[in-house]
Amino acid sequence: MTDFFERSLIIHEQLRGKIGIHNRMPVSSRDDLSIAYTPGVARPCEVIAEDASRAKNLTIKSNSLAVVSDGSAVLGLGNIGPHAAIPVMEGKALLFKEFANIDAWPICLDTQDESEIIETVRRIAPVFGGVNLEDISAPRCFIIEAALQDLGIPVFHDDQHGTAIVLLAALTNAAKVVGHELAEMKVVINGAGAAGTAIAKLLRCVGHSPDSCVAVKEVIVCDSKGAIHSGRDNLTPEKQELLKYSNPQNQVGSLSDVLKGADAFIGVSKGNLIDGDDIRAMGESPIILAMANPIPEIMPDVAKAAGAAVVGTGRSDFPNQVNNVLAFPGIFRGALDANAARITEPMKMAAVRALAQCVDHPTADLILPDPLDRTVAARVAAAVCSASNQ
Amino acid sequence: MTDFFERSLIIHEQLRGKIGIHNRMPVSSRDDLSIAYTPGVARPCEVIAEDASRAKNLTIKSNSLAVVSDGSAVLGLGNIGPHAAIPVMEGKALLFKEFANIDAWPICLDTQDESEIIETVRRIAPVFGGVNLEDISAPRCFIIEAALQDLGIPVFHDDQHGTAIVLLAALTNAAKVVGHELAEMKVVINGAGAAGTAIAKLLRCVGHSPDSCVAVKEVIVCDSKGAIHSGRDNLTPEKQELLKYSNPQNQVGSLSDVLKGADAFIGVSKGNLIDGDDIRAMGESPIILAMANPIPEIMPDVAKAAGAAVVGTGRSDFPNQVNNVLAFPGIFRGALDANAARITEPMKMAAVRALAQCVDHPTADLILPDPLDRTVAARVAAAVCSASNQ
Repeated sequence: MTDFFERSLIIHEQLRGKIGIHNRMPVSSRDDLSIAYTPGVARPCEVIAEDASRAKNLTIKSNSLAVVSDGSAVLGLGNIGPHAAIPVMEGKALLFKEFANIDAWPICLDTQDESEIIETVRRIAPVFGGVNLEDISAPRCFIIEAALQDLGIPVFHDDQHGTAIVLLAALTNAAKVVGHELAEMKVVINGAGAAGTAIAKLLRCVGHSPDSCVAVKEVIVCDSKGAIHSGRDNLTPEKQELLKYSNPQNQVGSLSDVLKGADAFIGVSKGNLIDGDDIRAMGESPIILAMANPIPEIMPDVAKAAGAAVVGTGRSDFPNQVNNVLAFPGIFRGALDANAARITEPMKMAAVRALAQCVDHPTADLILPDPLDRTVAARVAAAVCSASNQ
Repeated sequence: MTDFFERSLIIHEQLRGKIGIHNRMPVSSRDDLSIAYTPGVARPCEVIAEDASRAKNLTIKSNSLAVVSDGSAVLGLGNIGPHAAIPVMEGKALLFKEFANIDAWPICLDTQDESEIIETVRRIAPVFGGVNLEDISAPRCFIIEAALQDLGIPVFHDDQHGTAIVLLAALTNAAKVVGHELAEMKVVINGAGAAGTAIAKLLRCVGHSPDSCVAVKEVIVCDSKGAIHSGRDNLTPEKQELLKYSNPQNQVGSLSDVLKGADAFIGVSKGNLIDGDDIRAMGESPIILAMANPIPEIMPDVAKAAGAAVVGTGRSDFPNQVNNVLAFPGIFRGALDANAARITEPMKMAAVRALAQCVDHPTADLILPDPLDRTVAARVAAAVCSASNQ
């Protein structure tokens, strides 16, 4: 693993930038120069000056995204600041290009003030067709994303919704494998940050119309102090909000306590938090989606030996890798193709369904498509685009 | 000409973006994915978290520029706003890539407030290796550029300095052609905005050390009301500042009045402002650099017929095209190669000299190299890089 990380460092040193600019027209003649720049460029400028919406037909705004971070919650590394976040945002831009032919540019902000982030994104928005918020800590990410929904271009916090969409697709197919109905399941989520909250919301269809979304019967969210219930002291406003759609019986206790009888465990937390005894105490044929990286909440072999029926992790070296790259390229491709002003709840559910359907016959070792499967983004994009006018 | 502009519009409609993102590493295997993104990307992030300056070795910051405009003074079109400015900023990014292999991204700001522009550029700076300010109206451009000089990366307003550098190189070679000494010349500049002010400063070596810069003897700047002199009412602070290094004899009168006996005319104003009589009233073998686009302050054939010895314009269909593309790619290439924190006066003078020297034997029809000459940016870059530690 050390070798692997050092190899990554060397490759980053050699490349000095995983992405670059590519010119889409030649500059070989005086005529080219006069078309691309002065004086010819004045004509598209005049057209846009009359109608700003024409920027989407005449410029890179048709296909561009800002990948915006303040470096406050980068991977598992925490608050490492905007400069240290650049390699991740570049990586994200690389994946947008690779899987969805989207021109994404990293924007790493030298401020962690919510209002300043909101204001800055508004100010730089003209050249972008969308904004992917990334690695911004909770609860600021909720506030920032909500405040920008009127910007006229899609603004989407991938750590929340991208993660939730892939997890719900994974859970949908895992439920098929074990023969459970989502509507009858009790699901325990460990981790109450951006991802855990968004997963809980999506599992409970918060914001979705009842006919387009099947809510799981019961969701309990745990943080480092155990189950989030109404008797806890000093719950943040966000955790109080969680109680509106989670823990309906107001169960108290540790993660191990509330896992008893549960049908599925979703971990977006830290490595090695649960053990075989926890799995054995769960309901019949339990589903384990243990996303902590690089060490999952429980290792797949331990979970399987204790009776887990389906196990997924964030890692590429085990079956069932739950990877956001299965969602975000197709979601933004679909939104850009639809010229959508927002990524709505129906668009998110369409992404879940399309992604789940990318696996024809789910099995215990195949609940999601391969992250490198080039057809996935196109299928997700088509579904998201179609759902944009619902 | 109408056909030409319509052709530009059609090409912009077809391209929907003259630039795009290009991936500099493959994403073909799980290993690629793990190096470019999680978990491998964590290693360069950690290194930068310890020392932010390493971002220049490990990310696109090594080679990236923001091309920043607020759309307030776009070409000759005026204040057309940030959306309508996008085609120009994209064109600029295209030229940065084409001539200097720099990865430039357009940032069009939805604010025209000086403080907000300064603040926003500071906030988005982490991912960029430099900032090219573009098409921001005077006097705001002066204030914004000055306020950002401590950012730690070069911030350069091309409409000021790029234009001034190319014009001084042109004037240097034109002076050789007519056998005049720069130090003996009287130069009249028409236009007191960003370009005119920067040209006046550079011709008078304001901010330069005397041993590295030869000042022309006398500069008079005119605006639409004629010569700028101390007796004028209501001069802006910027025009009052101009008087510190221009119009030493405090001449009054119209542009035609002060042109009498002048050795050179530099127009950064509007078309058809001077005529043959004005040229005939100038000194011996006058030099005319008439930059208004698309119609110069005087047409070359009219100027020549009236006795102009050398005529340059902004147009590609006449000899001696004075085009900023001769300067800005090489200047930023040199600054990035030198890892310079600012573009200093010695770097600007080095650019002037290198650009002038690109023409071995100046003649009346050849005072500047061809804007498409691929060797120019490399020569300018080498000179700017060398001058960065002066």
